Parts: sequence; structure tokens; C-alpha cells
Amino acid sequence: MGGLWFTEKQTDHFGITMEIKQTLHTEQTEFQKLDMVETAEWGNMLLLDDMVMTSQKDEFVYHEMVAHVPLFTHPNPENVLVVGGGDGGVIREILKHPSVKKATLVDIDGKVIEYSKKFLPEIAGELENPRVDVQVDDGFMHIAKSENQYDVIMVDSTEPVGPAVNLFTKGFYAGISKALKEDGIFVAQTDNPWFKADLIREVQKDVKEIFPITRLYIANVPTYPSGMWTFTVGSKKYDPLEVSEDRFHDIETKYYTKELHKAAFVLPKFVKDLTE
Amino acid sequence: MGGLWFTEKQTDHFGITMEIKQTLHTEQTEFQKLDMVETAEWGNMLLLDDMVMTSQKDEFVYHEMVAHVPLFTHPNPENVLVVGGGDGGVIREILKHPSVKKATLVDIDGKVIEYSKKFLPEIAGELENPRVDVQVDDGFMHIAKSENQYDVIMVDSTEPVGPAVNLFTKGFYAGISKALKEDGIFVAQTDNPWFKADLIREVQKDVKEIFPITRLYIANVPTYPSGMWTFTVGSKKYDPLEVSEDRFHDIETKYYTKELHKAAFVLPKFVKDLTE
Repeated sequence: MGGLWFTEKQTDHFGITMEIKQTLHTEQTEFQKLDMVETAEWGNMLLLDDMVMTSQKDEFVYHEMVAHVPLFTHPNPENVLVVGGGDGGVIREILKHPSVKKATLVDIDGKVIEYSKKFLPEIAGELENPRVDVQVDDGFMHIAKSENQYDVIMVDSTEPVGPAVNLFTKGFYAGISKALKEDGIFVAQTDNPWFKADLIREVQKDVKEIFPITRLYIANVPTYPSGMWTFTVGSKKYDPLEVSEDRFHDIETKYYTKELHKAAFVLPKFVKDLTE
Repeated sequence: MGGLWFTEKQTDHFGITMEIKQTLHTEQTEFQKLDMVETAEWGNMLLLDDMVMTSQKDEFVYHEMVAHVPLFTHPNPENVLVVGGGDGGVIREILKHPSVKKATLVDIDGKVIEYSKKFLPEIAGELENPRVDVQVDDGFMHIAKSENQYDVIMVDSTEPVGPAVNLFTKGFYAGISKALKEDGIFVAQTDNPWFKADLIREVQKDVKEIFPITRLYIANVPTYPSGMWTFTVGSKKYDPLEVSEDRFHDIETKYYTKELHKAAFVLPKFVKDLTE
């Protein structure tokens, strides 16, 4: 095919491959391998441990769907925490909600923040916003020491290998419950149902034992394995399926709509089966 | 990565790549290059002109979503036509509807039928069913000579290059209208919104000029470009969004559900924009 191509093996036997115009930065950080590349198809792209994290062309899907589903479910989210998410995309979406007074971002790897600001400015630009508190710290430890503090927590982690392995444990979900206020809600990215069915089933089981309302929703992220990504919701009080019409207000989006807010929870049968 | 890998370039700069255990058959037919391969991830897989058509592991998504949406929309589908679809997967799903008396399959390439029967038996097996009439013929010409004949027509074609190029024209949709009965409905696969937005927009425009009810719905096919596949519906009378609850009957599926029937029409904003 000519030229430089990057291939992500999404399973041992399958992957995506893309043409690279140039490598903008490459580094082994304290926690992971970080590459920032300019791709011909997706614009600038962040890779961690050779896995696609986000790209300029399709980042809106993941960031909108992580942020807006829980934020429109909660009637008045003021204090929001993002665990991971150092590229700043989820933060940018959170700030579209005027009720939010403070958004705290805790990413373990300051290099992700640094190079996202440099090479993904339209994603990371709002990290400088005065409503945002950026902390370079261990998200697991931050959760462990927080109590009755947050309205909404969003877990925007890498896959459950490397630095994020603690973020897919029942102990972490128990910590999230403690860190949330009594009517709090959290969402976590939970990979895809084609190659990681067991993970989704296990997270659903763990979250159900801690939160009275547990849900799963999906979105199409074309640079993630299988193109179908799942998000697990745990909520103490508010059900994302029962948001009243007047709760929604206009925000500028490219993927999320108030109709899709509910439709995203209507799962293909083989995915629904993982939640039962 | 070792061993034999097949890469489909889904755009000039992006593709999927997969490990091949063995090539089962390869041939230049009268119409296209046909490869049947055994993949390590997806089971046996049919490739036409180096594009993935179907695989044992994920075929259920596409075949169920092509067949069941129009068949549950029509109150009493008896006479159904499939244009293309020589692998037989859509036929298998159609036969789950007891109202269907006859399902006609018209594929231009008899070799697709022959090798699907041989290497994809659980997909193609129902092509021998007595309710099925298999014709090796030009679908465009079959439509052109049909009048007031079918309740439902499904266009299960390859991409709009090679033998299928006529199947994405306004003249073809006009022919489909003529071939349908006065309350008929058709569905066509119309590629993906990430790389083929212009195609979807154009088909929507063309179909709207011919059919009073035009809709777009989506499904996740992990081996197709972007993972998000679209289907365009043109209907003379029945709206797929207004199917009454008692129309649905139980069928065995892995993707389609009656709830998903409606949710599949709730589009991400950038896709919805293509229909307006």
C-alpha cells in the first residue's frame, strides 16, 4: 500500500490499519507508550500502548456520549469528576452544561495532558477553563479518598490492561459510590460486546451489586474495536431512561440528541443478553 | 504479525486487517473476484472484489436487519424479492415469517450462490427451501420487467462499484416502485455515513422523489467500514416507525428486537443531517 501504516491489533486475529502522514511525538512515559500521529483519514490521533484513544475526526462520538447521558440524567449536576480523560474531550462537553460549577479531571499521566494540548487543541482547549481543576494523580486513589462529594463521575479510562487495570474492579465501583453524593450517578466506558463480552457481563454484575439502577448504552466509534462501544451507568436515584423532556436544553453536538439519549439504551439482543 | 493476513482498504487511507487460516476458494467470475477464506476471528468469510461481504460470526446483524424491519412493517408480506444476496442470509431470515408464501432471489452471479452453499451452509442452507425461487439473473433487468408484483423488495447488493453500480440510481428506485404492489415497501443497504455521506444523501433525495415515506436506519456490522451501516427504506403506505405492537410475533434473532426496530431509526445527529 506504500508509505507508513499503523496497525492496531484489536484481537489476536483482527485489527484496523491506517496511513500515517507523520509521527508528531513518541515517548515512553512513566505509565505507558504515548504516540501522537497525524493520520491521513482521521486527522491527529493519540495512541496509548499502541491502542487508538481519540482522533480529531471521530472524537465527538465518544466524548459527547460519555458526558451528556449522565449530565442530562442528573437534574442539577454541579460538581463533576472525570477519571482519566487527559485529552480533555469529556471536559469540553461537560462545560456545555451551565449547571456545572466545577469539573475535576484526574489523569495519572501528565504527558497525555501535555501532548493533547499541543497536538489536539480543539479537544483539549477547555482544560484551561477556570471551571476546570486538572490534577495529575492516580484516579483510583483520588476516588478512595473522596466521600459524598460528586454529583456525576465519569470514568474515561484506557482498556483494563496497564495503568487502568484497577478501574475495572468491584472495589473501584464501591469507591465511586462512596465518592458520589446520595443522588449521584456514574458512567464508565466498558469496551465492546464483540470481543469483550465477558468484561461487560462482569462489570454489569459488579455494578448491580452496588447501585440500584444499572444500565448499558452504546455508541458507534469507528476507530474502536468492532465500531460498537458500550458505556455502563450506575446510579443511586435517577434513571437515564426516565429523563423528562423539559430537562433537556439545547447544546451543540454532532452525535448526541435527546432522542438518541434514550435510543442508545435499546440494545441488540446479543448485547442485551449480557446485562441479564 | 506472522502468517497470512487479508487487508480491506475501506478508504484510501484506512482499512481492516485479519488473519487468514486458509483460502478455501478463489476465482475471477464473469462479474467479480470471489474469494472464500477461513479467518481466525470471523469464521468463514465471503469476499467480492476484495471487500468483505459476510462472515459466519457477524452475518446475523446485516441479514436480520435487512429482512425483519420491512417484513414487520408490512402487515401481510406474501411475495418478497431479494436483489443480490446470493449468500442466502436474507432469504433465511425472510422464511422466519410465516406469511411469506414465496421469496424470489435474483443474483447476477451464480458462483456466489454455489460457493456460499458449499462454505457458508448455515447462511445459505435455506436457498433449497421450496418457498424460495432462486434465479441467476440481472436484478436491474428483473426489476425492469416486473410490475405490481411484490409486497417487499430487499436490495442486498455489493458497493456501488462493479456489477452493482446500476442499483444505486434513481431509475432503479423508479423500477422498484413499479415492481411493488400499491402498498409495497423496499429496503436497500446504503453503505456508511463516515466515508460515504454523499451517497446516503443522494439516495435519500432520489427515494424521496418516488416514495411518500422515506426512512434511514442503522446497525452495527463490525466487518463493514466504520462499523455503522445504513439501510434506506422507501414505502408507499406503511411507515416502519408506526408498527403496532400486535404486528410483532416471536422469531429467533441475535440482533433484531421489536424495541430495536424503532430505535434503529433514531440517528446520530450527523447521520440525521444526511436525511434532511
